[in-house]
Amino acid sequence: MALLLHLNERDETQWAEAFAVELGDYPILRRGDAFDPAEVEYIFVWKPTPDAFEGLSGLKAVLSLGAGVDGLLRHPTLPDAPVVRFVDEELSECMSDYVVAHVAMHQRLHTRFMADQKARAWNQLYPASARTLTVGVMGLGVIGQHALGRLAPLGYTLRGWARSQKSIPGVTCFAGPETFDDFLSGADILVNLLPLTGETEGILNYETFGKLRRGVLEGGPVVINAARGGHQREADLVKALGDGTLAAASLDVFEIEPLPQESPLWGLENCYITPHIAAISNERTGVAYFSRIIAEHRAGKPLPHVVDRDRGY
Amino acid sequence: MALLLHLNERDETQWAEAFAVELGDYPILRRGDAFDPAEVEYIFVWKPTPDAFEGLSGLKAVLSLGAGVDGLLRHPTLPDAPVVRFVDEELSECMSDYVVAHVAMHQRLHTRFMADQKARAWNQLYPASARTLTVGVMGLGVIGQHALGRLAPLGYTLRGWARSQKSIPGVTCFAGPETFDDFLSGADILVNLLPLTGETEGILNYETFGKLRRGVLEGGPVVINAARGGHQREADLVKALGDGTLAAASLDVFEIEPLPQESPLWGLENCYITPHIAAISNERTGVAYFSRIIAEHRAGKPLPHVVDRDRGY
Repeated sequence: MALLLHLNERDETQWAEAFAVELGDYPILRRGDAFDPAEVEYIFVWKPTPDAFEGLSGLKAVLSLGAGVDGLLRHPTLPDAPVVRFVDEELSECMSDYVVAHVAMHQRLHTRFMADQKARAWNQLYPASARTLTVGVMGLGVIGQHALGRLAPLGYTLRGWARSQKSIPGVTCFAGPETFDDFLSGADILVNLLPLTGETEGILNYETFGKLRRGVLEGGPVVINAARGGHQREADLVKALGDGTLAAASLDVFEIEPLPQESPLWGLENCYITPHIAAISNERTGVAYFSRIIAEHRAGKPLPHVVDRDRGY
Repeated sequence: MALLLHLNERDETQWAEAFAVELGDYPILRRGDAFDPAEVEYIFVWKPTPDAFEGLSGLKAVLSLGAGVDGLLRHPTLPDAPVVRFVDEELSECMSDYVVAHVAMHQRLHTRFMADQKARAWNQLYPASARTLTVGVMGLGVIGQHALGRLAPLGYTLRGWARSQKSIPGVTCFAGPETFDDFLSGADILVNLLPLTGETEGILNYETFGKLRRGVLEGGPVVINAARGGHQREADLVKALGDGTLAAASLDVFEIEPLPQESPLWGLENCYITPHIAAISNERTGVAYFSRIIAEHRAGKPLPHVVDRDRGY
């Protein structure tokens, strides 16, 4: 019995030390250690290599550091063991910080005023108040609901869209593809927090942008993507940001990351690029979360937040 | 008996029509009309000309469209009649929208990421969450308290500073000049919403900037001024924004407005300039507010929100 750490592009040593404190006698293995793969009960992964799961015949669960599991679910040799997602209050908070900042920035017509500043032009234009605008959030899981909870006290009118019907106080909820156009037609600022699945891939495309509400937010509607690069068609974003279909966009994620030097998105003054930093899974909360799950699971309790592989999240 | 409108740089006709609906038979005069100045009981002003109050021997009150009365109180022939300030929920809301947008933008290290975008550089830096930062609000009147109420649910640690001691749940309140350094020493983002008086003029100066907390907000502390240009020393801002004493600033007001073409502030990439549009007194709410005050005052009730001329607001 053991927990195997398999974290790429992260400081695995830090995590190992923190797990050791929490898990006491329970063995923690790292890839360089000498061990029998059959002993591994749990594997904790971030960007696993192709051979990550080789020989793990006694595996009870795959623990995912990421909140999004689309990459992990595409792993060619992902075993049948349950995949447990990381649900992190601090990650939700950081994501909401990002969403609030970019929604508010666009509500205050930041692009317009930056262009005026560059031209040294004093054009008094009074932004419509938050309460006159509708923010539409796609994805109503833990993260989407947290963001809505932060936007509500700022006065925005709120609507949400998800695969299945949700009921969230103060939010008009839409469910399923057949309500998508309705949902879009009343949204001035569109925020994407969906999981990436076959159904949501490429959902941020030119057709979608054209269905957002025009005439309320000065300059046109705005899109904010803090979920996955696979949700967006970047050629469509460039077109929509150029022809006025969109007034502006805030993108934290990209089809290819790091965003290639030659991407035209870098040069667009109405496109706000951040390098996939909206939120990061936190070590302190991550160790506490997964240590508790391991302890409870070993004591016979069921695993929480198990990914539904058909649904994709 | 009559109400005289005296609005410069505003669409006085619109206000006259709206007042006519609210006030019924009570006469509304405009400067071009033929009338006896002694008939005027109330004058409603915005940027009054030097002769604005000539011959108004029967004046009962000066009604100020602006929430800030520093300009009006400097009028050389302002009569002794009570000056009534406009206290406007919608103005507070717009001001809070501005404050939230700029606080959140700086929390998310907007300046840093825009510089990286310009350089097409993918540098993953994770902004500290809102709850790790302290926002210090100067001015704890209606507008300051409204802004604090909007910042609180976003998770920021909050402190406030005012002339007199206030008690606001969730906000550490400081009072008077002797607590100013203490107040500054714990603030990462400083928001100015003070009235402009002899005591607060030039309060945003190099010495003040140097007393803000360093080491928590990546890059250094930030100043946001949405009150009056007279609060800031622009030469000091240029110096502090250039030498790193401040990481960034958001300015909606300026020593001279419109901000002169030659001002170096226009060209600073860590200075966000908006043309005094954080909030505007709203016609609809203004007409309702002052019509009610006139009706109640004529019925014998005292005037609300009368300016204390010694205090200056």
